[in-house]
Amino acid sequence: MIVKHGMNYLSVLNSARNHKLAPPLAVLRRQQFLIRVLGVRGENIMQESKFEADADNILRAITPVFDPNRHKGQAGKVAVIGGCREYTGAPYFAAISALKIGADLSHVFCTKDAAPVIKSYSPELIVHPVLEESYSVGDRDKDHISRRVVAEVDKWMEGFDCLVVGPGLGRDPFLLCIGMAVRKLCRSMQMVRSSHENNLFAVLLWNTVASYDCVSEIIKQARQASIPIIIDGDGLFHVTDNLGLVSGYPLAILTPNVNEYKRLVQKVLNCEVNDQDAHGQLLSLAKQIGGVTILRKGMSDLISDGEIVKSVSNYGSPRRCGGQGDILSGSVAVFLSWARQLILANEGNLIISPTNPTMLGCIAGSALLRKAASLAFEDRKRSTLTTDIIECLGRSLEDICPAC
Amino acid sequence: MIVKHGMNYLSVLNSARNHKLAPPLAVLRRQQFLIRVLGVRGENIMQESKFEADADNILRAITPVFDPNRHKGQAGKVAVIGGCREYTGAPYFAAISALKIGADLSHVFCTKDAAPVIKSYSPELIVHPVLEESYSVGDRDKDHISRRVVAEVDKWMEGFDCLVVGPGLGRDPFLLCIGMAVRKLCRSMQMVRSSHENNLFAVLLWNTVASYDCVSEIIKQARQASIPIIIDGDGLFHVTDNLGLVSGYPLAILTPNVNEYKRLVQKVLNCEVNDQDAHGQLLSLAKQIGGVTILRKGMSDLISDGEIVKSVSNYGSPRRCGGQGDILSGSVAVFLSWARQLILANEGNLIISPTNPTMLGCIAGSALLRKAASLAFEDRKRSTLTTDIIECLGRSLEDICPAC
Repeated sequence: MIVKHGMNYLSVLNSARNHKLAPPLAVLRRQQFLIRVLGVRGENIMQESKFEADADNILRAITPVFDPNRHKGQAGKVAVIGGCREYTGAPYFAAISALKIGADLSHVFCTKDAAPVIKSYSPELIVHPVLEESYSVGDRDKDHISRRVVAEVDKWMEGFDCLVVGPGLGRDPFLLCIGMAVRKLCRSMQMVRSSHENNLFAVLLWNTVASYDCVSEIIKQARQASIPIIIDGDGLFHVTDNLGLVSGYPLAILTPNVNEYKRLVQKVLNCEVNDQDAHGQLLSLAKQIGGVTILRKGMSDLISDGEIVKSVSNYGSPRRCGGQGDILSGSVAVFLSWARQLILANEGNLIISPTNPTMLGCIAGSALLRKAASLAFEDRKRSTLTTDIIECLGRSLEDICPAC
Repeated sequence: MIVKHGMNYLSVLNSARNHKLAPPLAVLRRQQFLIRVLGVRGENIMQESKFEADADNILRAITPVFDPNRHKGQAGKVAVIGGCREYTGAPYFAAISALKIGADLSHVFCTKDAAPVIKSYSPELIVHPVLEESYSVGDRDKDHISRRVVAEVDKWMEGFDCLVVGPGLGRDPFLLCIGMAVRKLCRSMQMVRSSHENNLFAVLLWNTVASYDCVSEIIKQARQASIPIIIDGDGLFHVTDNLGLVSGYPLAILTPNVNEYKRLVQKVLNCEVNDQDAHGQLLSLAKQIGGVTILRKGMSDLISDGEIVKSVSNYGSPRRCGGQGDILSGSVAVFLSWARQLILANEGNLIISPTNPTMLGCIAGSALLRKAASLAFEDRKRSTLTTDIIECLGRSLEDICPAC
């Protein structure tokens, strides 16, 4: 109905244009924009409605009521692993969003060069300059430095409620995937030529590079300590090539955008993205990776843990400025921590559905970002930036779920 | 009565939920919050009232009236010892809070890496990049560097009205407690094997490492110059293991949070925290450490100098974001300096009670932080951060004690 109406309106506009009786351009543009938004939403409403999450109510249910008896840290301690020579904004966006939503402490583990810059964005963050990049590490020191990096993160690990791995991590081979590349080489060597010497060399090489793979080690340690992990941005690039890191871990969330999702589908399902059966394909993908939760970002966010699929379609903003994904990962980290606390406190007896804390975290995080983006766009229009959206997080949360 | 009422109301809420006739979630949450706050406060009102400090009047009495004849520095010069590779926000929060309340000059002594970042937060602070951490100091240089660090701080010492030791200091062994660790080793050596050579070696080792212990030396020098010292954060971690540094010094204030207080009680009183006799236990603890003043942070702040106990229970904010303790230490530093000036000017004849400047400083600092936190929360709700509270310090002070 809405679409039809929109199309009728467009033809009226076109005919008016042809007769040189067009209304002012600004009015036309606004009308066209509304037609597009409402039209597309109208098409999707029928498909989506049965999957649509009751997002605002879920957000209200998992957000803790304030209790004056609580002390620092009990509302959540979040850590972001990311921030390198090129990228300093992304880890800041993720970490500050977590604080603005209500986490008590927010840490960033980044490279030495990135740290002073991230610190300078806000005195509220605790920034650890511990990661190293290839350009600053000699070959002979790699093993030693890798162990030190992992130990530095590990000594803080137990205290965190959630880890966000990836915002602004970059794709430095030392930091990320030198291990992966050489492991691939080893596999080829073992497959193509199976002489005793080659095998020995491959094993030696494998063992050496395994310890270089800092981010993999950090993920493994978080998993061992049962700490939820959200994999975003360059973290996804790495994890897509090393699915074993998260496969079968129910507290892992992957948050792919269009391209990252495409790569993930190709890698895991060995096919192309099928938008005709978006829900079914996402379900298969999450199941195939052993029940991790996937938040597929898009005009509607689709979320699945391999058991169910939910969508969040509240209207956000048409601006696609970089950094919104980082707000999302920081937000999901907080809501997931709160959902987990709530489930533990109620011994699993929840009156909300779904009951998986990773699903709840994704739904609430997605709903809040959309609300904040819409408020920011209302105010700033084309000049809306990620920092404007972050400034609207508090008001959005208050609109959905008043503090008291 | 309030508690009873609250509990009845809660059961009504629960029963309404069970019958699926629940009022809207937002209304429920607000009611639950009020019940918690009023309920818990109601329980405590009876216990606390006889200990409750007349905080606003004390704050008004010790805050100096503006006098156009005064010159720069007379309203207070404060120094914060803290700020390291990980932590740059904490010393900034303490130092800027001191300025925002009315100190004329605020210094920070931090590590070289931390200094440019802290400087970047505000051009108002005087930041000295003099402290060193283990990773940047070779073994052979430690003695020499330690002496230089202590001398650098010492040449400014006489000018300060109060020292805050600990915000963001970190727990680096060179900066903090290498001395302590090796002293323990020396003691074991002397106890286990008493040969002449071993004793000689132990004494030599003791003397050498004693000078590494930069923070201990700074505390000793401040004490020698009768400068008040507030020990907070990682400073408390260090002092709890080296109680001799502050024991018997009436111008020392310790400001432990829940965990730091627990550690202090275990160490000094050799027992667990007893909340049934919170006042009595705090009194014993302060007395046991030779009459230092302890500000035990919590839902109500409890303060004792080993002679009396006072509480400050004005309602602040339910947000427990990291950094509020740093505002408190900076605030207490200023009020303590003012209280001391007032006492000196009146030759000890004060019409307010208590008369100990450390008690007065703690009471006023606690009251102001609570007021500012409550104003910030009113405005920002869940997204309240420490910088928002700092922005409310001036207005809070003006509300309680108008400048003119």
